[in-house]
Amino acid sequence: MKVGIVGGGQIGTGWANLLTRFGHSVRLFDAEPGRCRGAANLLEAVAGTQVVIEAVTEDEHAKEGVIRAISAASGPEVILASSSSSLLPSRLQQMALYPERVLVLHPLHPVEQIPVIEVVPGERSSQEVVSQAVQFVTDLGKVPVVLRREVPGYVVNRLTAALWREALDLVLTGVIEPEELDRAASKGPCLGWAVQGPFLTYHLAAAGGIGPFLEHLGPAFGRIWVDLADWTTLSEEAVERLAKDVGKAYSGRPRDTWEAERDRGLQAVVRVLAEADGLGRARRR
Amino acid sequence: MKVGIVGGGQIGTGWANLLTRFGHSVRLFDAEPGRCRGAANLLEAVAGTQVVIEAVTEDEHAKEGVIRAISAASGPEVILASSSSSLLPSRLQQMALYPERVLVLHPLHPVEQIPVIEVVPGERSSQEVVSQAVQFVTDLGKVPVVLRREVPGYVVNRLTAALWREALDLVLTGVIEPEELDRAASKGPCLGWAVQGPFLTYHLAAAGGIGPFLEHLGPAFGRIWVDLADWTTLSEEAVERLAKDVGKAYSGRPRDTWEAERDRGLQAVVRVLAEADGLGRARRR
Repeated sequence: MKVGIVGGGQIGTGWANLLTRFGHSVRLFDAEPGRCRGAANLLEAVAGTQVVIEAVTEDEHAKEGVIRAISAASGPEVILASSSSSLLPSRLQQMALYPERVLVLHPLHPVEQIPVIEVVPGERSSQEVVSQAVQFVTDLGKVPVVLRREVPGYVVNRLTAALWREALDLVLTGVIEPEELDRAASKGPCLGWAVQGPFLTYHLAAAGGIGPFLEHLGPAFGRIWVDLADWTTLSEEAVERLAKDVGKAYSGRPRDTWEAERDRGLQAVVRVLAEADGLGRARRR
Repeated sequence: MKVGIVGGGQIGTGWANLLTRFGHSVRLFDAEPGRCRGAANLLEAVAGTQVVIEAVTEDEHAKEGVIRAISAASGPEVILASSSSSLLPSRLQQMALYPERVLVLHPLHPVEQIPVIEVVPGERSSQEVVSQAVQFVTDLGKVPVVLRREVPGYVVNRLTAALWREALDLVLTGVIEPEELDRAASKGPCLGWAVQGPFLTYHLAAAGGIGPFLEHLGPAFGRIWVDLADWTTLSEEAVERLAKDVGKAYSGRPRDTWEAERDRGLQAVVRVLAEADGLGRARRR
């Protein structure tokens, strides 16, 4: 399949690597010179493709210009997939000539490693384009998660934003250091959620299932819920402090060593969970 | 070491299994007849021990009675560790004869599988008891995470409560089904967090580190933060609906099959991450 990509940041180049690995013909354009690009201009990236992926910066204004340009350069048979991580696809559709062909395909960083790609239809996305997008994602060995309706941040980044705000707050209020919080999360609840997800985790955490769990621990959760961080912006001072503290915590090794460790870890975890799942399936037969 | 446990639910029996595996002599007492117990009464469970673990139901009133009884039955050399998952240790200390010997040791379910145990000192915990508790946890092959100050829900369950409220809300408002949300979380961001934790994850998600990441994605996070669920109690109707929907989603297999899959998955993930880390360390030498 011929796939055009507009935007050569981490997400755009991640898509390019993934698609190339699966034998697709990829043309990537980035307006910024010096960045990885395989097409001289947007028109060349888009011409003759079946799918165009928009992966420019997470800013509605920036995305608007690019979606208008892609839309003008491609026909009504092309899937126009935005890699936005938070914007409503119905809003992005307003910028397109063929709104029924527009939807969000939201991969996570690093695109090559994380299985989930969210499929978020807008109000005007056709059922056909949703089915084609699900097939496209599945054929890339990825796990499509289709939302029943659009909300800002979709599902993944709402879960992410909720945990992330609290993590930031716990560090900013001096309850814990960033590295210790990473340890608490990674060797703690995130392990369980990586294996089975929060609903199944809590369904198994009380003898009678999720109902008794919620009844029994409802008051305890309530005492925590009322106390959670509820701010909606980070001050410049907070960003500076976090940049300094987190940078210092992880300064012991070069960045590419951490990245290699992450990728090695992700590959190993994805592999053993697939094996454990396959083993379970074989036993259940 | 002789360890007494009061409370024979999932957490108390989890502690008992873990401690027995590490060669400790364990005596467990539960007031409810028919539950797993190794001691005829609380006094028998507590007498002659170096550590007593309180693991009764997550309710301040219930814990108060048990802490008073343990305290009356044990000396000033004993560590009195509460397995509370949310209550302030300073509050629990008020119920004890030797408040300096009281702190929270918060393991996660399943205790045998999840490495993290939070160590939460109260205002009056002695430095000695904190050091002893860290050593006790480390000797069990666990990962102690020590908080710098106490907050309701500590660190783990604040992160948990933040994500869990949003997960519940997304399902209750019809954005996604429980099983799909579990898939989005487990094959998505939780994988990355299980490997490196949220701070390191986002530190690596932008070329310049966490500072540029927060500056660049701050507005996008802000748009999501303002829109997140902020309720603090679940209605009875919501609990009923969730019990029904989650129960149905996972009714395809018996509970113990899911539990076996969870434990197999957790063991495999903990093992490969330790290997990946060991490999990284060997390479870095």
